[in-house]
Amino acid sequence: MLLRIFLNKKLKVPAAERGRYFEVYNMKRVSAEEYKKRIDLIRKEMSGADIDFYYVPDGDFHMSEYVSDFFKGREYLSGFDGSNGQMVITADEALLWTDGRYFLQAAEQLEGTGIILMKMGEPGVKKIPEFLISEMPEGQTLGFDGRVVPYSFYEQISETLDKKNVKIICDIDLVGNVWNDRPSLPSGKAWILDDKYSGNTVSERLVMVREKLEKDNCDALILSALDETAWLFGFRGEDVEYNPVTLSFAYISMDEALLFMDDDKACDIKDALEKSGVTVKKYDEIFSYLKNNSEGKKILIDCDFASTSLINSLSNTCEKVNKNTPVRELKACKTGAEIENERSAHISDGVAVTRILHDIKMLSGSEELKAGNVTELDIAEKLLSYRKEAEDFIEESFAPIIATGAHGAIIHYEPTPETNTVIKEGDMVLLDTGGQYLRGTTDITRTVIIGKPTDKMKKYYTAVLKGNIALSEAVFREGTSGKSLDIYARKPLWEIGIDYNHGTGHGVGFLLNVHEGPQSISVNAPKAYPFMPGMITSDEPGVYIEGEFGIRTENMTVCVEKNVTEFGKFLGFDVLTLVPYDRDLIDCSMLDEEEIRVIDSYHEKVYQKLAPFFDEKTALWLKDITRPLIDLTAKI
Amino acid sequence: MLLRIFLNKKLKVPAAERGRYFEVYNMKRVSAEEYKKRIDLIRKEMSGADIDFYYVPDGDFHMSEYVSDFFKGREYLSGFDGSNGQMVITADEALLWTDGRYFLQAAEQLEGTGIILMKMGEPGVKKIPEFLISEMPEGQTLGFDGRVVPYSFYEQISETLDKKNVKIICDIDLVGNVWNDRPSLPSGKAWILDDKYSGNTVSERLVMVREKLEKDNCDALILSALDETAWLFGFRGEDVEYNPVTLSFAYISMDEALLFMDDDKACDIKDALEKSGVTVKKYDEIFSYLKNNSEGKKILIDCDFASTSLINSLSNTCEKVNKNTPVRELKACKTGAEIENERSAHISDGVAVTRILHDIKMLSGSEELKAGNVTELDIAEKLLSYRKEAEDFIEESFAPIIATGAHGAIIHYEPTPETNTVIKEGDMVLLDTGGQYLRGTTDITRTVIIGKPTDKMKKYYTAVLKGNIALSEAVFREGTSGKSLDIYARKPLWEIGIDYNHGTGHGVGFLLNVHEGPQSISVNAPKAYPFMPGMITSDEPGVYIEGEFGIRTENMTVCVEKNVTEFGKFLGFDVLTLVPYDRDLIDCSMLDEEEIRVIDSYHEKVYQKLAPFFDEKTALWLKDITRPLIDLTAKI
Repeated sequence: MLLRIFLNKKLKVPAAERGRYFEVYNMKRVSAEEYKKRIDLIRKEMSGADIDFYYVPDGDFHMSEYVSDFFKGREYLSGFDGSNGQMVITADEALLWTDGRYFLQAAEQLEGTGIILMKMGEPGVKKIPEFLISEMPEGQTLGFDGRVVPYSFYEQISETLDKKNVKIICDIDLVGNVWNDRPSLPSGKAWILDDKYSGNTVSERLVMVREKLEKDNCDALILSALDETAWLFGFRGEDVEYNPVTLSFAYISMDEALLFMDDDKACDIKDALEKSGVTVKKYDEIFSYLKNNSEGKKILIDCDFASTSLINSLSNTCEKVNKNTPVRELKACKTGAEIENERSAHISDGVAVTRILHDIKMLSGSEELKAGNVTELDIAEKLLSYRKEAEDFIEESFAPIIATGAHGAIIHYEPTPETNTVIKEGDMVLLDTGGQYLRGTTDITRTVIIGKPTDKMKKYYTAVLKGNIALSEAVFREGTSGKSLDIYARKPLWEIGIDYNHGTGHGVGFLLNVHEGPQSISVNAPKAYPFMPGMITSDEPGVYIEGEFGIRTENMTVCVEKNVTEFGKFLGFDVLTLVPYDRDLIDCSMLDEEEIRVIDSYHEKVYQKLAPFFDEKTALWLKDITRPLIDLTAKI
Repeated sequence: MLLRIFLNKKLKVPAAERGRYFEVYNMKRVSAEEYKKRIDLIRKEMSGADIDFYYVPDGDFHMSEYVSDFFKGREYLSGFDGSNGQMVITADEALLWTDGRYFLQAAEQLEGTGIILMKMGEPGVKKIPEFLISEMPEGQTLGFDGRVVPYSFYEQISETLDKKNVKIICDIDLVGNVWNDRPSLPSGKAWILDDKYSGNTVSERLVMVREKLEKDNCDALILSALDETAWLFGFRGEDVEYNPVTLSFAYISMDEALLFMDDDKACDIKDALEKSGVTVKKYDEIFSYLKNNSEGKKILIDCDFASTSLINSLSNTCEKVNKNTPVRELKACKTGAEIENERSAHISDGVAVTRILHDIKMLSGSEELKAGNVTELDIAEKLLSYRKEAEDFIEESFAPIIATGAHGAIIHYEPTPETNTVIKEGDMVLLDTGGQYLRGTTDITRTVIIGKPTDKMKKYYTAVLKGNIALSEAVFREGTSGKSLDIYARKPLWEIGIDYNHGTGHGVGFLLNVHEGPQSISVNAPKAYPFMPGMITSDEPGVYIEGEFGIRTENMTVCVEKNVTEFGKFLGFDVLTLVPYDRDLIDCSMLDEEEIRVIDSYHEKVYQKLAPFFDEKTALWLKDITRPLIDLTAKI
């Protein structure tokens, strides 16, 4: 899955059915006048608190990619519900920043509210920190809720504003003050993930973390990212849709391990953790704990994932070491057990996805299709039902993207009741979906044709497939990062004058977030983080032709050691995903012998692993579509 | 040519013969006691000037890669003559920093001098800025000659030292004070390069530069790098070996163009430049000019190429814009005329290099070889004589690397009377050489086998050749930098577990420095600078097996537009170099059809372009060694 995709309310299985405990809040759209009134209420609060500029970001307490409804203050104030939007409110203006994906939608949703749309990336449009620095007059006051603003943002502005004699109040939640029916924070319970899934114990992970802390000469480590607390303490949760995590912080020193999580969430994990030497404290206590225990200490904390409030609660005499936490780095390199579990999960997931591909391929020429009875949402629902057949399936790992025809070219498309489209003969259908299993997280994209493809479709599909293979077959020297590898996936596309405007791959957690770092495969990654054996990453080149179709082919891979010579270690990837490519879309004349060998042996493996789970007829179909390509080549 | 290679005195053609005007200084080695005395003289000067730490770098006034003997103060004080070495002298210590290439040599040359060797990159060894910051006690004084210290170094230390109450005196040349027979500065004359070679005029180049200045809202531009003044004003010079440049600075505003160059150097270019509206002032006047004319101005200057003295002469109210100068960027994109001239120069250069390869290949089994009569230096001398046959040949573009057998594995090897080795049957010989012609600069590496290669040699040679071809055949989207492309050249090496520890390519000037920026092909490049049509770059992967052999294959390429589609522009390279590969070293079973096609068509082109310049017998030999590889493949 490419980037952050937000809640899709229509597709969401009711919370109760899925055993989830976050409130499904119905954010009703109100009239433009009503939004004006809400902003005026904020202004009244501002004036009461002597605040001149108030900043409303869109994060949660942990800088999570997905946030629960409690944190949707910006939507409450403006009516704009895109996945990226931040506001600044002054006595006579209200401004909303969003990016190019949402310019049209934001303009529509903000109409009549008087809110000024700030188009990010357009010439002359300042970023928020620059805006605040240049626009705030001397002697004024900026306010925000520091619990939801990353410290890195605060750091960017505080020194310059201080020089300008602008005061910052960073512990004031005006949105909370005016939002009467604000949803409550999620109340899911954490549960223990059996050690057999992770392959190691809390105590073992604590030893590894402390070794790293010692190397960095640090006294302690603070964890704020929710997937990091879950990984370290071996629990999973139900607080954020798609991400099995629980609201919590952690503090680890050489002799203490503290988990800050409220009792109603921690009740099922507390005993087990205490046996491993972990002390569980109340969620909010992190602030006072840090205040009283950080004096003179050298503490490792990743300021990209820590809120302003969290960092500001540290003593002035505490030395912050701002970098990737050891948990982030250790978590990225999966254990042998995790990798084996992922392999097994990919069989279940492959069965589900291959079944839906079968259903879609069978639609060609069918009465059902002719009658216009099959929509994108129907496919999404059916695929979810197939995934649920796996006993340990928990939920989807992100909102499914099922895009037919021209929808495929909208990179951030997700079907909603408003956009939902009937699938037609001749359409290419792009399916980017994933699941959370006890055995791990999956993320896979396939594009298939219903009926006969055009030459252009075949040419572009084959180029994307070549890119996908080139990356997963790469052998590279230890120390190489995904910044360098990205180009392998683009080469076959560039050779025919096409490309895609997104990264090629992202890290994937183990029964955790579908997007995790520090590794990624993108030339635009902020830092070059070297690949290490055990890292799980997606490989997803694509091509998008506006108004026509979109193609993406995505496999999950695990980094493995390939060779050791006098020049050092050489690494490569093993493909985890087990779903056939659409041979109807492959132009064999564009493939060299090695590529044909790779595809044939992959298809052979897919058949061997999945066939046992299919009925006889579907297994025969699978056998047919995974037969060696070389037959096809012979025909050409 | 890979990196900075310094003067090779033995190989150097006498200055008079080459019409060069730098003094050939004979830096005599003296006894360890004598070096001690020289350092003590510096200490006397230090104490007279109240200086506690004195810093001796190894640059010139323009941060050039090659420096003339005037600037070899470090060698004068220490006896160490490696290409990288900087000293710090205190009342009771003298320390010399150098890198891994020179640890052994430095240890030998410093023996008995009492100078402490600081091994750069070794654990616990501080870099010079860190050393000064941590070691200098409060209240002390640091001194250096700011004319030879880059401003970027000064910037790194000045603020912190200031806070520590350490004073910096940056206009004191103690080396000059104690060095009685110091060589004088070079006294070469500048000469006008006819516009037919560059394809544009001084006035046209000034227009382009001023357009760029206007875009950056700058009032003026200062040039310090010598190849930049030469390019802009269309002259070339004789002040630095291998680099046809002249000591000078420049200052360009919207209505003025000033060249700072002494009269005895500028006498042959002054009239022509004045007709183009350029004013020529004395070299040293730059400092007072900047002092009196920079007040309140916004001035563009690249601080990596500017000395501390140069920048410190600017007014306090002057705003510095520190980035690549527009000249550096414009110069990198060659004009149509420059490219056509380079193509022509590469025919002359190809003839010379192919003749020497012919001579080397013919050595196999010869009496001459058996008698041990042919050395690396012989080859270098002969190749130079072949290059001189071109009427417009000026000089070599760097010290030639001719490395036989195990010498090939020493990346920075250059033959000297001490290392010069007899060439033997079964040796691989690596030749990395280049020339300066009126029609441009060349830089080429070929590796050849004398007699029969081992399987290992063939395997590694073919892998390197595959890498070389993969890069030069690459098609890439506009905006792609050499940081990304580097991996193409390594892929075939990584696949068999080998690699090389240097970059893959560097920019090459037009009858200017053989190393120029801003582009380069290296994953370790400090910045990602996108390729643009007209950029000339080397493509030089290699592999080095210690004690056995070294292989490098280097072509020069020019960036060209390959394709324009709805996705944008796609670029690629045209190979300029015209010298055959050694087919005796090619293992065709490792090549795919496309690679064979590329090599065959390259060889066909080499034959067509070079054969007319050969006698009948040599032309027949060339025909044979450039015949299609496919014959060979058939035999396998």
